[in-house]
Amino acid sequence: MSRLLNLEVCFTPLSYPLFHRDNSVVVVIDVLRATSAICTAFQYGANGIIPVATVEEAEAYKKKGFLAAAERNAMIVEGFDFGNSPFSYMSDAIKGKEIAITTTNGTQAIEAARKADKVAIGSFLNLSVLSDWLKNEEKDVVLLCSGWKNKFNLEDTLFAGAVASRLLETFKYETICDSTLAATLLYAKAKSDLYGFLSESSHRKRLERLDLEDDIRYCLQVDKAPVIPVLDGIVLRNILRN
Amino acid sequence: MSRLLNLEVCFTPLSYPLFHRDNSVVVVIDVLRATSAICTAFQYGANGIIPVATVEEAEAYKKKGFLAAAERNAMIVEGFDFGNSPFSYMSDAIKGKEIAITTTNGTQAIEAARKADKVAIGSFLNLSVLSDWLKNEEKDVVLLCSGWKNKFNLEDTLFAGAVASRLLETFKYETICDSTLAATLLYAKAKSDLYGFLSESSHRKRLERLDLEDDIRYCLQVDKAPVIPVLDGIVLRNILRN
Repeated sequence: MSRLLNLEVCFTPLSYPLFHRDNSVVVVIDVLRATSAICTAFQYGANGIIPVATVEEAEAYKKKGFLAAAERNAMIVEGFDFGNSPFSYMSDAIKGKEIAITTTNGTQAIEAARKADKVAIGSFLNLSVLSDWLKNEEKDVVLLCSGWKNKFNLEDTLFAGAVASRLLETFKYETICDSTLAATLLYAKAKSDLYGFLSESSHRKRLERLDLEDDIRYCLQVDKAPVIPVLDGIVLRNILRN
Repeated sequence: MSRLLNLEVCFTPLSYPLFHRDNSVVVVIDVLRATSAICTAFQYGANGIIPVATVEEAEAYKKKGFLAAAERNAMIVEGFDFGNSPFSYMSDAIKGKEIAITTTNGTQAIEAARKADKVAIGSFLNLSVLSDWLKNEEKDVVLLCSGWKNKFNLEDTLFAGAVASRLLETFKYETICDSTLAATLLYAKAKSDLYGFLSESSHRKRLERLDLEDDIRYCLQVDKAPVIPVLDGIVLRNILRN
């Protein structure tokens, strides 16, 4: 490997076109809660997850007999099996199943990144296995934060900082990207108490109002779900499963 | 004043439409170096500055007898009187003059914010007078970072954090905005040594390669140019003059 690899953090799906490179891996991040829920679903044996952009598409899958999840503005859309809570995926009912899922931010970010060479799913729940896999891929990496309706959010940025810190330790990557610097600086400040650090963040307040404190605490745990969901056509598969 | 005012940091001109509100003040920030240069020009007596989006427009003003400044990729465009260096505006030649200016990022951000109720220009050089003026305006505030070609940059974020910290001290503003939180956290970490903190930043490296260290040091000084440039139609005027 002669050249240094490119490592960038993209704070919102809106900006993704500026970060797109051929042959790169994009990690989609929606820590509270879509990508944490996806990791949990795979940990509990889901066979595949089909991210879709609209509630209508999720509905169509449901009519065809798939399990289906739909969240908008932090709540389950009426008539669906699941929303965005990792706890709802901790069930034998999902073993071996394919689940269609649409969420306010996370699945929109997957949509934005679809043309990337590889699209993987990241959350604190799979931090270590994901980071190790990325190191071995030896590709340019874009850490794509889902944010909140295309605005910057703190929790996704912290996770991007966590992954970036681990990748930069290998000295294989370029560091000349200010969003990566900012993410690693914020993560260094936050890592000893992620929950406390996020106490002022907008989305944590949004979820608190909906009484989702347990979800938040769960999603901020490191390495609880050692899976690597990667997009294969239109379906996410856990590539650690055999 | 019954409701709390809204205070948001917008990291790139691309995202500005998501932050636009009627009746708000937008502060355009391009610390290295467009907004620092503009503040310096007013400090040295410029009568008005006409920000334009393209080199062609700046050229048209020049043909009409205006002074004209054009910078692209950190360098003066050939045939123009000035680029982006604050030092080039420290001259009697600009006293009482109107100057047309186009730059890679800063004037693009002004363009994006043109429809705001008020558009002001911010840099460390006018931090205190600008912050005090904003406090008295009692309006929603968007701190609009110019970034670099619509990507996040660190120096503009630090300045946004500096202004936000001062406004939040008044308890007149809502704080539920993650980009504002991130900017204030980064500024708190950086403020004792802005120059050192930015040593790893992408734009500082870009300017270092062009031997512009003196410009960087100058632009990071606080309150050297106590002016408040505000857009009046198509012209920026220093509202502190007279």
